[in-house]
Amino acid sequence: MLLVSLELHMSILVVGSVAFDSVKTPFGEAKDILGGSASYFSIAASFFAPVNLVAVVGDDFPNEHVDLFHRFCVDTRGLQKLPGKTFRWKGEYGFALNEAKTLDTQLNVFESFRPEIPLGYRNCEYVFLGNIDPVLQRQVLAQVNRPKFVACDTMNYWIDHRLEELRKTLALVQILIINDAEARMLTGESNLTKAARTICALGPKILVVKKGEYGVSMYADGSIFGAPAFPLEDVFDPTGAGDSFAGGFVGYLAKVGRLDGETLRKAVIYGSIMASFNVEDFSLQRMKRLKHSEIQERYLQFKVLTHFEADQSFHA
Amino acid sequence: MLLVSLELHMSILVVGSVAFDSVKTPFGEAKDILGGSASYFSIAASFFAPVNLVAVVGDDFPNEHVDLFHRFCVDTRGLQKLPGKTFRWKGEYGFALNEAKTLDTQLNVFESFRPEIPLGYRNCEYVFLGNIDPVLQRQVLAQVNRPKFVACDTMNYWIDHRLEELRKTLALVQILIINDAEARMLTGESNLTKAARTICALGPKILVVKKGEYGVSMYADGSIFGAPAFPLEDVFDPTGAGDSFAGGFVGYLAKVGRLDGETLRKAVIYGSIMASFNVEDFSLQRMKRLKHSEIQERYLQFKVLTHFEADQSFHA
Repeated sequence: MLLVSLELHMSILVVGSVAFDSVKTPFGEAKDILGGSASYFSIAASFFAPVNLVAVVGDDFPNEHVDLFHRFCVDTRGLQKLPGKTFRWKGEYGFALNEAKTLDTQLNVFESFRPEIPLGYRNCEYVFLGNIDPVLQRQVLAQVNRPKFVACDTMNYWIDHRLEELRKTLALVQILIINDAEARMLTGESNLTKAARTICALGPKILVVKKGEYGVSMYADGSIFGAPAFPLEDVFDPTGAGDSFAGGFVGYLAKVGRLDGETLRKAVIYGSIMASFNVEDFSLQRMKRLKHSEIQERYLQFKVLTHFEADQSFHA
Repeated sequence: MLLVSLELHMSILVVGSVAFDSVKTPFGEAKDILGGSASYFSIAASFFAPVNLVAVVGDDFPNEHVDLFHRFCVDTRGLQKLPGKTFRWKGEYGFALNEAKTLDTQLNVFESFRPEIPLGYRNCEYVFLGNIDPVLQRQVLAQVNRPKFVACDTMNYWIDHRLEELRKTLALVQILIINDAEARMLTGESNLTKAARTICALGPKILVVKKGEYGVSMYADGSIFGAPAFPLEDVFDPTGAGDSFAGGFVGYLAKVGRLDGETLRKAVIYGSIMASFNVEDFSLQRMKRLKHSEIQERYLQFKVLTHFEADQSFHA
């Protein structure tokens, strides 16, 4: 009984998309591979804590992918299977790999997605609201019992088209994880430090700003943490980097069960590590062969990457 | 005699531009203020070591500016005064402040600049070749006696129009300090880690890549150091940030007299600090009132900004 109770406490509930992606990068091309924010988040987070997935797929979704989730101890009782086709996204990256050009989006069954939280998920203490309509994000919160924290993502589309609904959702979350362009867009403020102050006044006490190859800034309790991205010589496919970051970040927080400054900073590093592995191959290929020892090794490399000694030049 | 000799050893020789800038930012406008790469570099470096300036100005250059250099112990014996007008640059920054739009450039006396290194400068052990024609950069090196190291800057114009000459200069320098766009342009490589390897094969053993608000990466001896920029709520005028960075970076190295990895990393932080102060006001206004204690305080703040603890999650 004690073990079960512990498991429940550290469990993560994630709501988002599960999709088939068709991706072209300068290094290769892949068709109808497993993608979607909830997929990337779940697998990354599963290295740290049990994950409960809420999403929707069509009847074309193969058992092979469901098996993959199970292999990573991702609970799929919340994965609805509806008649129709699974959400499809097609995108292409140029030489710089910094932004995907969306070539096609087919919402399919995702269009009528209404998140239903299975009874067994409702006591999850850690909730991640992936990038979906802010109205749906709040429908999720209405179905769960006082989680320890709620983290959420959003995107330019919701900022543009559902700003009032998004504000209502933000008032209910503790952690917002977005990229720098979204932070600027949400606030109309070009200076990120100022933008962070504005966002924290909307609800989230903690803001994590992802800047792609330029790393991450976290704003929490008036304190700022800055971390570079892990330098990679071969970025193969950036798709899912942000969601893998969120998975590692929330996963580590759930594993540790604390939200103090030191823990949050470590979580940023683990998020960055999961993102850095994810971009080394298409879809979840790299995650499938990732070992705990590799994560720990990259953590040490992050220490080396960012280390500098104290100095007292002007007191000597 | 001993003191004189020590001073000579840590002295820095800088060659670059001294200019009148007219700058417009969203926060204000200033006309014909003191600018130029050598001005920003000299004043920033002077907080760490004595600086010997080589540049050219016209007969319109007021003594007031020369006095400013002297106040910061910048030696101006190498500041040529020629008949004609001083180099003038006019630029404007948009809301994002990330890149200046050049509205006008008048080279004036700078067009016929031929660096002449005064006898008293020739034993300087630290040389910084500011962003000028790579042919002139080599003319400087031909006039100095075996410096301990040579650092240099360049820009897109020279990469585009003088690539062969630039390559000859790079073969003679130990440290290249450029921005990320220039590193990509110089190598035709979008991935910065790969670009760094290519550049280090051209000559410089140490590459420092400035990324503006996203911080700095340094590549040295196969090791990478990543530091965020100091987060500022009010960036007033970004002009001279890169040159102030170089001044703090080279200045600290000259002060310490070593080139080991730890010293280089501290130098990156001091460079970032000088850049962060410089952008808080027009021209050298912030530098004029900057105190050593403020530099030291910001160093401590950098430690706090980037600190995270070791972790052994996967060995527990």
